[in-house]
Amino acid sequence: MADFDTRRAPIVNIDRADHVRSDPEALADYSGMRARLLLLNGLDPQIDAEGGLVWGSLADAEPDAELVFLGIDGDRGCFAAVPKRPTGVGREGFMRTITALHDSQVPIYACARSLVDWHARHRFCAQCGSHTVPVKGGWQRGCLNDACGAQHFPRTDPVTIMTVENRTEKGERRLLLGRGLGWPEGRYSALAGFVEPGETIEEAVRREVLEEAGLPIAQVRYRASQAWPMPSQLMIGCAAVTFHERIVVDKTELEDARWFTEAQVRDVMSGRDGLFLPPPRYAIAHRLIRDWLDGN
Amino acid sequence: MADFDTRRAPIVNIDRADHVRSDPEALADYSGMRARLLLLNGLDPQIDAEGGLVWGSLADAEPDAELVFLGIDGDRGCFAAVPKRPTGVGREGFMRTITALHDSQVPIYACARSLVDWHARHRFCAQCGSHTVPVKGGWQRGCLNDACGAQHFPRTDPVTIMTVENRTEKGERRLLLGRGLGWPEGRYSALAGFVEPGETIEEAVRREVLEEAGLPIAQVRYRASQAWPMPSQLMIGCAAVTFHERIVVDKTELEDARWFTEAQVRDVMSGRDGLFLPPPRYAIAHRLIRDWLDGN
Ligand SMILES: [Zn+2]
Ligand SMILES: [Zn+2]
Repeated sequence: MADFDTRRAPIVNIDRADHVRSDPEALADYSGMRARLLLLNGLDPQIDAEGGLVWGSLADAEPDAELVFLGIDGDRGCFAAVPKRPTGVGREGFMRTITALHDSQVPIYACARSLVDWHARHRFCAQCGSHTVPVKGGWQRGCLNDACGAQHFPRTDPVTIMTVENRTEKGERRLLLGRGLGWPEGRYSALAGFVEPGETIEEAVRREVLEEAGLPIAQVRYRASQAWPMPSQLMIGCAAVTFHERIVVDKTELEDARWFTEAQVRDVMSGRDGLFLPPPRYAIAHRLIRDWLDGN
Repeated sequence: MADFDTRRAPIVNIDRADHVRSDPEALADYSGMRARLLLLNGLDPQIDAEGGLVWGSLADAEPDAELVFLGIDGDRGCFAAVPKRPTGVGREGFMRTITALHDSQVPIYACARSLVDWHARHRFCAQCGSHTVPVKGGWQRGCLNDACGAQHFPRTDPVTIMTVENRTEKGERRLLLGRGLGWPEGRYSALAGFVEPGETIEEAVRREVLEEAGLPIAQVRYRASQAWPMPSQLMIGCAAVTFHERIVVDKTELEDARWFTEAQVRDVMSGRDGLFLPPPRYAIAHRLIRDWLDGN
């Protein structure tokens, strides 16, 4: 065990230690020799053979890179550097990345990726156009123009994603799934859409299903949530019920939407049938569809 | 009825008609003579004697004002103008505004206020510092710098707000409430905090209660949500349970936090007792506390 390089050992859990962010002395302490830096290529992580994120030291960052304090692992600070350009592997590449990562690593990567991407896209003040700099360990950016002084915060966009159930005249359950424009061949998943200003979660679900599939919703229940760093979304998973069956697809938003019987969904999710390509295991849509199959 | 000025009649429900946003012709049609403009003084509304929002026509906007398309009321477009400066009456004044408005008017005002406030604070591109202009009826802003071309979207910040329950050794229910720094004298309400990048709703609730009151949470259930336009938040209401009773208040975040017995909370909420000032009726915290009293 003496040879084991702890600097490269995976980190399973990061304490966000938010009090450190506004304490410059503590932040300096955690930025010392023992600090760890998440190794990123643009926005993409390095992944070891066990699905762990690979960490280096702060010396691995570009000399002028902005650093974001992710939190602490024991007595070590954990950081990520803001890339010059927030480039990454794209939606499908991201799906492969998420699949390659051990489950414990996904929230750590999700947080780091969302943060550094936000920094890379917010180097200027939206209020006055001046330069901004990271503040509070990278959990804020401050405008350098004294006459403005605006403070900007990382954004997290709430998105609703929902199963929609309908019963046939015989009482058989069926599930509405759709495919977005440009999705991989055969992929069907739950509908989703951003919560807009002035809306509740439930109102956003109703509006989204009505807009995209023409179906009025009778009931909405919250099920679960998930962080999704593409770029920084809070996925809010719901189960909806409609008494209407006639789908009218909004072709500007979706390529297709249709009903699948419970048996069809069960066969696909168990891998017995390839009628459609389900959402990847890690995505909350996968869990929502499994929940629906389980009758929840 | 012939004398009734429909231009000033309250609007009870606005259809967001999101397809109109990306259809310049339809948008022009809805911007005609019959279009209505929400009358704002900075960010504050004009309210009639019945609690209705007061509307004018597009001629009431400053000639160079940016207009935001709120949606349609029957065959009329509904708009709000972006103020030169996003000034308003402040937190307590806002509480009075919300209280003065009829319930049906609050979501309309919440949406309009969030949107125009966002526009007023985002006249520049965060990515390159250039000027931006409204796009798609004000549901987007586009960067005027062709080399950048970034598109920016109104933001909605998810915030968790939670009741926290604990039982005494005798099994009596009690509720954790706290007071923020600078709140009106005697006001106690539910703890709340922003969902951070990389977090689920449930994780944010646990972190918030641990940080602000030092209490580990055993269980979290989603209850309800609400749009809160100060400036643009999605309040996500949860009910949490803890088996710990020792509160450690984070004095940088809260002035105080303490347990109230079920009888105490019931007396305050029914107006029989003034032990503390509860959250105003419209706030989701009010509903969450009532839910807790009802055993939900
Ligand atoms: Zn500024
Ligand atoms: Zn730009």
